[in-house]
Amino acid sequence: MTLNIPKGTRDFSSIEMNKRNYLIQTIRKQFELFGFNPIETPSIENIYTLIGKYGEEGDSLIFKLLHSGNFFKKNFLDFLKEIKNDKKTVNISKYFIEKISNKALRYDLTIPFVRYVVMHKNEIVFPFKRYQIQPVWRADKPQKGRFREFYQCDADIMSFSSSLWEEIELIQLCDEIFTKLNFPIILYINHRDILRGLVEMAGIKDHLWKDFTTSLDKWNKIGRDLVKKEMLHKGISSQSFDKVAYFIDIKENFDNKEKHLTVALQNSEKGKKGLRDLNFIYNNIKNISLQKTKLEWNLSLSRGMNYYTGTILEIVPFNNRNSISIGGGGRYDQLANSFGMNNTYGVGVSLGLDRIYLEMESENLFQTVYNYPSKVLFIHFGNEEVLYAYKIIKFLRKKGISTQLYPNADKIGKQFRYANDNNIPFAISIGKNEINKNKIKMKDLQKKTEKEYDNINDVVESINEKRKNYE
Amino acid sequence: MTLNIPKGTRDFSSIEMNKRNYLIQTIRKQFELFGFNPIETPSIENIYTLIGKYGEEGDSLIFKLLHSGNFFKKNFLDFLKEIKNDKKTVNISKYFIEKISNKALRYDLTIPFVRYVVMHKNEIVFPFKRYQIQPVWRADKPQKGRFREFYQCDADIMSFSSSLWEEIELIQLCDEIFTKLNFPIILYINHRDILRGLVEMAGIKDHLWKDFTTSLDKWNKIGRDLVKKEMLHKGISSQSFDKVAYFIDIKENFDNKEKHLTVALQNSEKGKKGLRDLNFIYNNIKNISLQKTKLEWNLSLSRGMNYYTGTILEIVPFNNRNSISIGGGGRYDQLANSFGMNNTYGVGVSLGLDRIYLEMESENLFQTVYNYPSKVLFIHFGNEEVLYAYKIIKFLRKKGISTQLYPNADKIGKQFRYANDNNIPFAISIGKNEINKNKIKMKDLQKKTEKEYDNINDVVESINEKRKNYE
Repeated sequence: MTLNIPKGTRDFSSIEMNKRNYLIQTIRKQFELFGFNPIETPSIENIYTLIGKYGEEGDSLIFKLLHSGNFFKKNFLDFLKEIKNDKKTVNISKYFIEKISNKALRYDLTIPFVRYVVMHKNEIVFPFKRYQIQPVWRADKPQKGRFREFYQCDADIMSFSSSLWEEIELIQLCDEIFTKLNFPIILYINHRDILRGLVEMAGIKDHLWKDFTTSLDKWNKIGRDLVKKEMLHKGISSQSFDKVAYFIDIKENFDNKEKHLTVALQNSEKGKKGLRDLNFIYNNIKNISLQKTKLEWNLSLSRGMNYYTGTILEIVPFNNRNSISIGGGGRYDQLANSFGMNNTYGVGVSLGLDRIYLEMESENLFQTVYNYPSKVLFIHFGNEEVLYAYKIIKFLRKKGISTQLYPNADKIGKQFRYANDNNIPFAISIGKNEINKNKIKMKDLQKKTEKEYDNINDVVESINEKRKNYE
Repeated sequence: MTLNIPKGTRDFSSIEMNKRNYLIQTIRKQFELFGFNPIETPSIENIYTLIGKYGEEGDSLIFKLLHSGNFFKKNFLDFLKEIKNDKKTVNISKYFIEKISNKALRYDLTIPFVRYVVMHKNEIVFPFKRYQIQPVWRADKPQKGRFREFYQCDADIMSFSSSLWEEIELIQLCDEIFTKLNFPIILYINHRDILRGLVEMAGIKDHLWKDFTTSLDKWNKIGRDLVKKEMLHKGISSQSFDKVAYFIDIKENFDNKEKHLTVALQNSEKGKKGLRDLNFIYNNIKNISLQKTKLEWNLSLSRGMNYYTGTILEIVPFNNRNSISIGGGGRYDQLANSFGMNNTYGVGVSLGLDRIYLEMESENLFQTVYNYPSKVLFIHFGNEEVLYAYKIIKFLRKKGISTQLYPNADKIGKQFRYANDNNIPFAISIGKNEINKNKIKMKDLQKKTEKEYDNINDVVESINEKRKNYE
């Protein structure tokens, strides 16, 4: 048996963790500056909280947990008896899963957030602005940039009325985050009601709405021709497709594109509403201005989750070399209906930590992250010397200087090698000699210089002097 | 259907999250000051990495994941066919679980750490000092202070030789953490080799070792008499029990207790080794001194996990009112053997975040944690006013002041109520009046005073002045 971890999961080394923590801290800081407060929900949800919320494909990608211990055994034995006596075919997946599993791992952070709001509605002050940075799990086929366990960073607002200023704030929030990360992005925007308008205008039947949006969303990835093929295959007529495609092909600026669509959608109430919303967002953002973000109206953007009801957003790196999405979001009014709470208005963004990490790594954008917290290695000469020196170790730590004691009195060369291999910049030696002279000997491992100090405060000063140059 | 979350799991509100994050930050800071580096391992491990490492009870408490999607269906259909054709009884739990599950949720952080070391041994610099702060899952019966999802905070050292200075550093580490938390603790210490010596001395048979330690460990919880009853029931003789109990009953200080045991264990090599180790740790700690920690030799401490081989540690609150363990640890040399890597020496501590939280909450030790990040609410008068004022919102955020924009032009009273309910200390109003006068109006919601400012820098100064008094 070779030792391994499940496919689609990863171990993170200290170097990776320092970069990941830097991303999380940067995102968290901006979430809080914009007034979002942290919550967390359990990794495990009741299966009925999740099932049916992500479409059929989503349902099959939810990780389900077996009942544990005796409860599992009892249920399973009952089940076996029934199966053995039963000559009919049973609806395996549903029937069976009820017998042996009633819990599942969280698939995203939006549904648990909505569940949280409904369960805690009496304690919450609305409008409720929360952020959540936690892992989610999907039994997707693993591939580059797609993992079975990955982190989402979500900021959402839930209230009893909607305001387009919420969308504007979320766009500003993304811009601040990616500006702080020095990572330019394109923020695609669109509106589900404009898509509704296009569907009406093109005479596409209501029952094809889901198929239409699913195919349309692939436009940038698989291209016009394959999208057309898919749509025709699903029963959308060639004329209908052409009517829609005409507008997607328009390569003009926002204002001109809007003019074309205003004419085309003049008979669709939904369409006109969508255009009004987008226009409001666009004009205000133009006045407020963005830094590292190019806001772009992408008429083919429609987003996989069917719960979106208004604005939809998607974030890609500015170079978009790998045509990979690093975040998205949108408005999902009335989503809490499915949990029995009416008249809620929700909107949010979700950033994919692992995708951002990969893209920043490949663009070499982590240069400024200093990876090695330890500053000092204490060379181990023997029990007596260590005991004598331990007060210095404690003093350095009190001063905020990460200090390691090498655990054994190994050969000095081995101990220095440990410091070098761990990128520890200083080594302090207090042997018999130094004890007799009442000195502290410190080596700068990069400059390869050595100095004796009379005073521990001078040691601290030297270390801090050097830290300034790094951090 | 009432909406709920699985038993033993919890939602955390913002107020709870701020306290939890404060604990995590404090612990993480000390881990890093002591030279431990962060890693993370996946929540999901292969089932064979975990099974067999935690004893039989542990195995049954591991949360297992169903195969997903089509793979599950195929395997399950195969299984059904076999079951239907098979008249024999099958060994359900093992046979079945192999068919439908090969993955499980992490049960602790120690086994995944050891698995990590073995898998990455060629990239790691030894001695390897890592910390890990992540949730673990156990299908335990939920009760007060026992959850099915909870956080562990682990610091461990793995190397090719052992050093008792590692134990001393870990004890110092715990003392620093609980000193920073202002939370006095008792740190119980014992040594598995001393227990081995006691077993030899009392003539208890080798095969009763596991039963002996399991019962002994309950001494502080269920008391002497019930432990005796359990041991007799398992086949340990009354005379053997009395010989061991004699030493556990000794209520003297470390040095005297050690004298008694030195005599009693003089013929046990193991016993003498254990006493030497403990003596070394005790004397050095005495010289180095502790702050909020009482180090106490607890001869009945033996720890549940059978992988410990030397020093064992357990942390309880100093008052120990709820006789609840908030952390523990010890030495587990050669544990990596089970993953095919020999001659490893490991030692570590594990702190239970959720237990520490509960105890600190009940002792009212979170007073200094300031729970409300948002400092300013921007009152919404209408689109024109918000657009005019947005540059001020951006400026405040750039200055590190968390600022919310109320999303709608609701009645002013409702907006101020939102600020009060969220403990936001300042509200800024820029209506038509203020725009004309070129002023910024800010209300201090605690003092209930209002002031007009000419200059945004004065606003920042006022807010920061007040922050000093809070934080």
